[in-house]
Amino acid sequence: MDDLLPGMLHLARDGEETLTRQLTDQLRGLITKGRLAPGQRLPSSRQLAQSLGLSRNTVSFAIEQLSAEGYLTLSAGRRPVVAEGLSLDRRKSSPRNSRAGSERINLSAWASSLQRSVWPPIHKERPRPFQPGLADEREFPHDEWSRCLRRAARNAPLRRGRPINHPPLQEALLRHLAVHRGIKAKARQILFVPTAQAGLALVANALLEPDDHAWVESPGYAGANVAFEAAGAIISAIPLDAHGMTIAARKETPRLIFVTPSHQYPTGRLMPIGRRLELLRFAEAAGACIIEDDYDGEFHYEARPVAALQGLAASPRVFYLGTFSKATYADIRIGYIVVPEALIDIFELAQRHMGSLTPITMQDALAEFISAGAYLGHIRKMTRLYKGRRDRMLQALAAEAGDRLTVETPAGGMQLLARCRPQSNDQQLSARLLEAGVVSRALTSMLYHRSGERGLFLGFAAWNDKEIDQAARILGQILR
Amino acid sequence: MDDLLPGMLHLARDGEETLTRQLTDQLRGLITKGRLAPGQRLPSSRQLAQSLGLSRNTVSFAIEQLSAEGYLTLSAGRRPVVAEGLSLDRRKSSPRNSRAGSERINLSAWASSLQRSVWPPIHKERPRPFQPGLADEREFPHDEWSRCLRRAARNAPLRRGRPINHPPLQEALLRHLAVHRGIKAKARQILFVPTAQAGLALVANALLEPDDHAWVESPGYAGANVAFEAAGAIISAIPLDAHGMTIAARKETPRLIFVTPSHQYPTGRLMPIGRRLELLRFAEAAGACIIEDDYDGEFHYEARPVAALQGLAASPRVFYLGTFSKATYADIRIGYIVVPEALIDIFELAQRHMGSLTPITMQDALAEFISAGAYLGHIRKMTRLYKGRRDRMLQALAAEAGDRLTVETPAGGMQLLARCRPQSNDQQLSARLLEAGVVSRALTSMLYHRSGERGLFLGFAAWNDKEIDQAARILGQILR
Repeated sequence: MDDLLPGMLHLARDGEETLTRQLTDQLRGLITKGRLAPGQRLPSSRQLAQSLGLSRNTVSFAIEQLSAEGYLTLSAGRRPVVAEGLSLDRRKSSPRNSRAGSERINLSAWASSLQRSVWPPIHKERPRPFQPGLADEREFPHDEWSRCLRRAARNAPLRRGRPINHPPLQEALLRHLAVHRGIKAKARQILFVPTAQAGLALVANALLEPDDHAWVESPGYAGANVAFEAAGAIISAIPLDAHGMTIAARKETPRLIFVTPSHQYPTGRLMPIGRRLELLRFAEAAGACIIEDDYDGEFHYEARPVAALQGLAASPRVFYLGTFSKATYADIRIGYIVVPEALIDIFELAQRHMGSLTPITMQDALAEFISAGAYLGHIRKMTRLYKGRRDRMLQALAAEAGDRLTVETPAGGMQLLARCRPQSNDQQLSARLLEAGVVSRALTSMLYHRSGERGLFLGFAAWNDKEIDQAARILGQILR
Repeated sequence: MDDLLPGMLHLARDGEETLTRQLTDQLRGLITKGRLAPGQRLPSSRQLAQSLGLSRNTVSFAIEQLSAEGYLTLSAGRRPVVAEGLSLDRRKSSPRNSRAGSERINLSAWASSLQRSVWPPIHKERPRPFQPGLADEREFPHDEWSRCLRRAARNAPLRRGRPINHPPLQEALLRHLAVHRGIKAKARQILFVPTAQAGLALVANALLEPDDHAWVESPGYAGANVAFEAAGAIISAIPLDAHGMTIAARKETPRLIFVTPSHQYPTGRLMPIGRRLELLRFAEAAGACIIEDDYDGEFHYEARPVAALQGLAASPRVFYLGTFSKATYADIRIGYIVVPEALIDIFELAQRHMGSLTPITMQDALAEFISAGAYLGHIRKMTRLYKGRRDRMLQALAAEAGDRLTVETPAGGMQLLARCRPQSNDQQLSARLLEAGVVSRALTSMLYHRSGERGLFLGFAAWNDKEIDQAARILGQILR
């Protein structure tokens, strides 16, 4: 053997790898493949160095590395020995358990259910009209934002302390939310999470026990359903009327209620103050909490935005959920929750346990972007632009689809619901549109109770007039 | 009333707020406070404009806004009426449920348990010696990184498609991991999550069912325990020997096994190849998956880093978990998991459902930082620096603590375990050190089985020689 080993090694003196590394890798390979058998003794490092024409150091390093990794056993004054038990051969594994050892990995019930999940609709390609939920990122001041980011990254070494939620952003956002959304809170109540969905998961995990009942709007935002179901809750789908979620005592008392009062998702309806107060009274009496998702509350076209539910609540039962991804750009990946003051510490701990943290550099850049007025300036510019696009969209749909679609003018937001004839096949329609390059979401995919309502959910914010007209023409052709 | 209303309004013509806004807010306030009663008729907007000396438009806007919000009811040709049901008074809520309506919010069992959680140790102040787990961020090339970030943010409008895991970063990181950590994977198998903890939560939720058994090392990393417990699993604490986690069939078959084979956390021990293969065979036979946490696998001081378990596995049962926060800076908030190829789609869906996404701008900046060689350059520089600090720390501890502490030289990483006398009170020692400005973690807080082992977990990487000497002196004084 001592004579054979050098012949089994092929070291390239002009290779990219060092000789130590080549020798280590090749020796390890010979052991792994069984060409050097367990228990077998290697030549001494002196001998090996000599026969390979290497320095003693080179060989020693390789031997020590392989000993550290456990491939060789060393003992003082003796030659290295190939270690025992280095085979992955499955025949040696315990026969008792061998049936369990299939290649298949058992997923949890939750992960298995994802295979059937229709949420979220995934569009990996470049966005196309009328994909809902998108801001027009072409209009975002990327240069100004990139300067904020650079400055925040350069200032990182100067920052002291390590809060997970950056006080300057909490303060800047609170000033904005207090004035524009009627939020009443202390800055410390605002927590930053990677996405609004992570915020839903956080609240769901912190409040829901398995088999608790959670109310969602129907039609409504499926992201809430999946977050509550993941926490083990039973979903109660609550139908809407013209004022949004209908409130009435039902068989099961909810623990958590999810609503979108600013513009109901997807109908765009505003929940008026009477219903808001009714909802708050109901939640108070039932001991339920409310998640108020103000997903695109920044954009209002008719009047001043209606103040958020959170600011109305006398009791601290409302969790206000928002995101920067509509008023800046989708990739920013910062959402936020305003939590009740008494729960700040618990929710920050929950954030750490779930790992739902966002980079302070991003938070710092956003704080500057808001404080410098760039955030509000962008919102104002986009509000004018989006209002024009909404009107263009209403015109184009009226012209191309006539009375085949009924559209309620949304008072704000980035999308609208165009209703089709009851009981018609909106899924098929949506699929045909997609083939023709027009993205939509069928209303039935957002309905969680039996209902004949049908329609298409269409985004208007991210497309210019020409794109809107073109896509509306395609929609009209397919409808006829 | 028609005559009284103007006197209840106080409009400032030189105020910061517009007159419309002042009028809207004050009318809303009067309704909310009950000074305008439900059902009460307001003057017509023409009358109100006249008596207040305002333009008709100003008053109309305010009335329409309050109607949109639901405070007023409008009907054609009639004067506005204050809406009904605008009180939050709790006496009107259903008496049946009134007991549930306490101010207290019921947290889930998980959230309640957080109140007792000792993990993670939170140090909100500026880091102090010897806080474990910290890189020396003073040495990070913040300027170069901020240029990468700025460039990535400016290039955002050019990016097409919207994957949640950025292919250029997947490819750059895979090249690094393949060469330096022996990872065998396709680039698509790498998913980016906000933190390593979010990665643990993701794998735990996807694999564990309530009452499944999960193995963790004892002593070991508590972040794994809390993630598995949150998923409902039962933790089995597996004692270590000199080679790391001891493998033997136990009463309950584990579904998931968490190990830190590169440098065991906290002992710093390397798991040799024999034990690695034994673990893989065991997992294969048991049908269990393995999470290999390579939390600071970048830093090795004695020999070349030992290849990761992931690259050894013939079966796709190993999830490789890593983070950029040790080799760059803590705030970067990007961790990664290498998942089995067959599970890429499910895990990407799981990421979306949990909202565990990171900004593509950050991912893109990192891809450039790695591809330009800055990442490896920084790791090499820090490896030299940290090795020197480890040695300094060993010297300083030997000089100041003598045989009161027994330290195994860690072959890599950023921290070491200094053992105290068995059964001594390491928690009290750690608390006394903290008072004196020296941060440590008691070994008992990382032990999950009965054991007399005691010690202090100390970070050496983030402190210069002077800081190490000073803190070691304090440690010595307190020990004596």
